[in-house]
Amino acid sequence: MVLTTIAEPRSRKRNAMERLEAAFADDLARVNALILERMQSPVGMIPDLAAHLVSAGGKRLRPLITLASADLAGYGGDAHIKLAAAVEFIHSATLLHDDIVDGSPLRRGKPAANRVWGNSASVLVGDFLFARAFNLMVESERLRVLDILANASSIIAEGEVRQLAAIANLDMSESEYMQIIEAKTAELFASAARVSAVIANLPQEQELALDRYGRELGLAFQLVDDALDYAGTAGALGKAVGDDFREGKLTMPVAKALQAGTAEEAAFWRRVFQKPSRDDDDLAQAMALITRHQAVPATLDQARMHSRNAREALHVFPASDTRTLLSDVCGFVVDRSF
Amino acid sequence: MVLTTIAEPRSRKRNAMERLEAAFADDLARVNALILERMQSPVGMIPDLAAHLVSAGGKRLRPLITLASADLAGYGGDAHIKLAAAVEFIHSATLLHDDIVDGSPLRRGKPAANRVWGNSASVLVGDFLFARAFNLMVESERLRVLDILANASSIIAEGEVRQLAAIANLDMSESEYMQIIEAKTAELFASAARVSAVIANLPQEQELALDRYGRELGLAFQLVDDALDYAGTAGALGKAVGDDFREGKLTMPVAKALQAGTAEEAAFWRRVFQKPSRDDDDLAQAMALITRHQAVPATLDQARMHSRNAREALHVFPASDTRTLLSDVCGFVVDRSF
Repeated sequence: MVLTTIAEPRSRKRNAMERLEAAFADDLARVNALILERMQSPVGMIPDLAAHLVSAGGKRLRPLITLASADLAGYGGDAHIKLAAAVEFIHSATLLHDDIVDGSPLRRGKPAANRVWGNSASVLVGDFLFARAFNLMVESERLRVLDILANASSIIAEGEVRQLAAIANLDMSESEYMQIIEAKTAELFASAARVSAVIANLPQEQELALDRYGRELGLAFQLVDDALDYAGTAGALGKAVGDDFREGKLTMPVAKALQAGTAEEAAFWRRVFQKPSRDDDDLAQAMALITRHQAVPATLDQARMHSRNAREALHVFPASDTRTLLSDVCGFVVDRSF
Repeated sequence: MVLTTIAEPRSRKRNAMERLEAAFADDLARVNALILERMQSPVGMIPDLAAHLVSAGGKRLRPLITLASADLAGYGGDAHIKLAAAVEFIHSATLLHDDIVDGSPLRRGKPAANRVWGNSASVLVGDFLFARAFNLMVESERLRVLDILANASSIIAEGEVRQLAAIANLDMSESEYMQIIEAKTAELFASAARVSAVIANLPQEQELALDRYGRELGLAFQLVDDALDYAGTAGALGKAVGDDFREGKLTMPVAKALQAGTAEEAAFWRRVFQKPSRDDDDLAQAMALITRHQAVPATLDQARMHSRNAREALHVFPASDTRTLLSDVCGFVVDRSF
């Protein structure tokens, strides 16, 4: 097994997500069963569409954060299963609605649900999953959990609208962009971790530490996602390279290239993002500018900083296998190629 | 004031809604202020779009039901204000998402929000309002209230998807249609009334009576809405006559004409609803069939039956001005011309 041994350091790093899954396999199986149960409906289109998205292809990163956080918090009950399912439902509802906003043909390597069932079905099934998420939260019998996740949900929607508005005026600084992704991505990661502290009755310091862990991890995750869109390969990403660009979505590499570039370059970005669609030549030119300003490595550097912040947030907890796992996930998120 | 006296019986009936508004004017002003406060966001598109829909033109029928039910229940606190605002937010979120499903150019006599801001903004601002509704409910500090309204929200979405699916196969009985409108319309009316019983700690019999009142009133309301679409006038309705038909939406008059008609007529309905759009000639032919089978008066008769059921549900409460008002609203709903 020489090969395995040689490959060990790198494969260990790559497998932090799988180790997390393995460590919480029993809990995750319960979450998956609950997800399957609660997406049922006598209206067949609902489970069909939900299954397309929810039961296939998802990495379950957010619910795993809830499960691992509950373990880190020493929680001994069952509510974390329901909250993990609720978090995944909120995430799934957001994805269904995002498909309409983005207009991307692919999601998780499959045709986006709205391409198969239409925009109307995606809107309504998203609403259904969102409502079911709240039913699950109610069953946790903790009002603070509901408050945290309802608040997160409105912040997510706010972030998405802000991004929509930013596209129109192409006048976005890096710090504005950070506010957008903190809202649309990091808030749910933060809540996914924090709710476990609430059900475990942890003191405020530890509750806020878990919030910070999730938030910083979410920022790192989104920045890597942004960078990979200008650097990855279609197969591994489950979406096409340059998708964000084609959809006219301003992300961090663009914000960095814009900020570092000349007035002439700014005119290119403005012109190309104001067009109704962008072709391969536009993408080639965008890639050239992003490469010129080293916007991808700069975005990845920033992701690594947030990944380090996430690790540090865990220091208020005593050392444990679960703390190590959650810490290793921070490395996984920034080193993944998908 | 001879004229007023002569007109009294009819004008009293027509004005039940206005009398309800007047009786709860102070509470309604607080609800409106709260709605305005909670739809604010630093992201300007959100209050702009929300104002277009929420702060203009709404009859506030659902929140008024919550307010009057709280009074009928003898509730003495403040939570009914928050719940009335939450109910209106859920309703508004549903309308924003419906605009995408329906494709109707008008809503409450104004251009539908998605025609002004686009589908993406309507989806996301709907999500925002829905999340804010849950924040308001959390503030009521009653888990049962959250359970009732989360459940209602998933049932509403389910009803909408069922209607969407029914359009595709044009194979809908009257009883199936009743299930659809019980879900997509009556469930929120039922919850709007019921939550007031919950916060007032009413015994189960009275809680279920308020649920029944709202549910039957909602059914009557929707059936009248369906009938008016084939009988009303554009100005008064705030939407065009034949809108439901043009949008390919199966409603009760169609279900009745279909059920009473010949195989040849069924072929017409199938053909016309399977087309991507329907023109004036199609509408004329549909109107002829609906008239032949007296589907509009039959739909209104059915609405009156549910209106009577709603009145009867109130009998478990002692006589009072508020009970009379709620009872008179049942008459208003079926006698309105808009």
